[in-house]
Amino acid sequence: MAVARAYLDHASTSPLRDAAYDAMRPYLESSFGDPGRLHAEGRATRVALETAREQVASFFGARPREVVFTSSGTEAVNTAVSGALARGGSGGHVVTTAVEHSCVRDAVDRGTTEVTVVGVDRFGRFDAGAVVDAVRADTTLVSVQLANHEVGTVQPVAEVCSALRERTPLVHVDACAAAGHIAVDFGALGADLCSVTAHKFGGPLGAGALLVRRGLRVPPLLVGGAQERTRRGGIENVPAWVGFGAACAVVDLATEAAAARMLVDLAAAVVDRVTGVERFGDGSLPNVLCLGVGGVEAEPILLALDQHGVAVHSGSACSSETLEPSPVLEAMGVDAERSLRISVGWSSATDDVERFVGVFPGIVERLRELRTV
Amino acid sequence: MAVARAYLDHASTSPLRDAAYDAMRPYLESSFGDPGRLHAEGRATRVALETAREQVASFFGARPREVVFTSSGTEAVNTAVSGALARGGSGGHVVTTAVEHSCVRDAVDRGTTEVTVVGVDRFGRFDAGAVVDAVRADTTLVSVQLANHEVGTVQPVAEVCSALRERTPLVHVDACAAAGHIAVDFGALGADLCSVTAHKFGGPLGAGALLVRRGLRVPPLLVGGAQERTRRGGIENVPAWVGFGAACAVVDLATEAAAARMLVDLAAAVVDRVTGVERFGDGSLPNVLCLGVGGVEAEPILLALDQHGVAVHSGSACSSETLEPSPVLEAMGVDAERSLRISVGWSSATDDVERFVGVFPGIVERLRELRTV
Repeated sequence: MAVARAYLDHASTSPLRDAAYDAMRPYLESSFGDPGRLHAEGRATRVALETAREQVASFFGARPREVVFTSSGTEAVNTAVSGALARGGSGGHVVTTAVEHSCVRDAVDRGTTEVTVVGVDRFGRFDAGAVVDAVRADTTLVSVQLANHEVGTVQPVAEVCSALRERTPLVHVDACAAAGHIAVDFGALGADLCSVTAHKFGGPLGAGALLVRRGLRVPPLLVGGAQERTRRGGIENVPAWVGFGAACAVVDLATEAAAARMLVDLAAAVVDRVTGVERFGDGSLPNVLCLGVGGVEAEPILLALDQHGVAVHSGSACSSETLEPSPVLEAMGVDAERSLRISVGWSSATDDVERFVGVFPGIVERLRELRTV
Repeated sequence: MAVARAYLDHASTSPLRDAAYDAMRPYLESSFGDPGRLHAEGRATRVALETAREQVASFFGARPREVVFTSSGTEAVNTAVSGALARGGSGGHVVTTAVEHSCVRDAVDRGTTEVTVVGVDRFGRFDAGAVVDAVRADTTLVSVQLANHEVGTVQPVAEVCSALRERTPLVHVDACAAAGHIAVDFGALGADLCSVTAHKFGGPLGAGALLVRRGLRVPPLLVGGAQERTRRGGIENVPAWVGFGAACAVVDLATEAAAARMLVDLAAAVVDRVTGVERFGDGSLPNVLCLGVGGVEAEPILLALDQHGVAVHSGSACSSETLEPSPVLEAMGVDAERSLRISVGWSSATDDVERFVGVFPGIVERLRELRTV
């Protein structure tokens, strides 16, 4: 009999929620029209799409017209950064932080050479005042994350938005790691742009959104069609976006965050049980636990955990093909190149975490012994 | 009892083939890992993804490493055009044609002001020699379609590629309308870049590919991750891309094209039965019939057909929100602003076309009477 796996890598991607899949199935199985068409098949998917837009808008505190669906969080971030820079004229100054996801870093670096990167403290947290102080007269964009994807630190983004509300630069908030785990209220935040993604909290792959403040126009990244009110060309991915809306509609943030925090606290018990293990980050994002393990590389631990049926992630790399030191840990001044990230989600159970807690100490001990032989 | 609809708008989007959906379901229901991760869940989806890549490569005459998955044909085209222009340094000269899809036109216009647009004959066909002659010393990109999306004319793209093989500009072929309906052989064609999409021949939404000739590097459009060998950042849409591969694997081009041609010929009978109806295009793409109807607007015909259970498309607009004259018809010198497009696909049956042929004459007659009242 196959033993169920303990999947603790929700921050990479989460299984699809039943409610999302159920909502998607009609659009995979029978209702397939292009929502830009006038015939009955097109009108039916148009209705479904606009319902999904309302669900996404409602969940993220936005107006439906402020929601531009995209294929992913990465596409949303690329659209926000490229669009803000193109709008401001080429080569504008950008303020960002040292702990952003690589898609923010890379999109900014592609768009301009004038970048101020604000550092973080040992918890990976930036100072809102430092971000605001870095804004210059020629700053066109401030791009900050709502929560860190690697160490799970929630950032003082509301203070940044508030301080910059009357000033020139557009403020983009990358909320991809936060969405579905803590409240993201676009309207209350007062940001100009906000990127979210579905698949990290039980929505489908192929679904993200860029929230664009009412009245703001940023040029599209994907051109060639009037879809999404000319803000994103290409046929709408109705099944995926309907699933995104359905996932938004069923998340009970308070309950799920409390459950996640309980599980993460349970997993964090290994810090006390195993010498030389420390927690990185400040624990403010409820679903993420980032561990540094002294004297052992992260990958062998990951692989040994995997053999014991426990799936976790090591470090920040967005693809196994890059095994570079983590810029996030480096910015935190932490004496570790890579970390182990344990992350839970809607389908996680106490059993999953108990399995991790049960096997982790022995694995670390054995690997340390191998190292000293 | 609900009467089944006659869906004749496959060139907009096609229902999902059973084989594609069956292939996707495990990746929607149980196997969900990030293929960039080292754990068992990630390794499983990585295998599925690479199998899909081989299926797509095989179907389009490419090597697996030449396949860069995208979220859509539009994303593939945008990546090709932006990438080719960025690679060649900004503002290079582009040669394209007057009948390209709006995503090619718009991506070219965004990237450069130096564009030569080659015209077409009354069938919407460009002359290969005219395209080649338009190439200058500073031309960085030639972008041509393999088949026209609106009138169904197959273009002399092989001749263009052959003539430019030893010359400087990159050649991009937009094969989105052709893919799955006629053979697309990337290797034999000798193009540098080729865009294809899944959903127009029974693959899922959320799936396209840019084929990139071996050894050629074009900068990515979506940055932020090493996915697709650093050619497209963002988590891989495993369910959609697996479905794309499965759709490629089951298409029997010769059989399906013959069936499509038979159905289109059946539909084309209305040209002889109704006065003032003419066929646009040369009929070389087997699945598309484009009709001009004298004396009546296209939209009322479309809506009347829809009420009779027949779904067709009017004109070239990529979204119902744009009701502008068709640039394709304009380039052909045709005396019509919009047309009716009847397009068939894998699920089409004789009944569907017979329904269209049965109701079309009466609808046109009635609308013409209304007009003369």
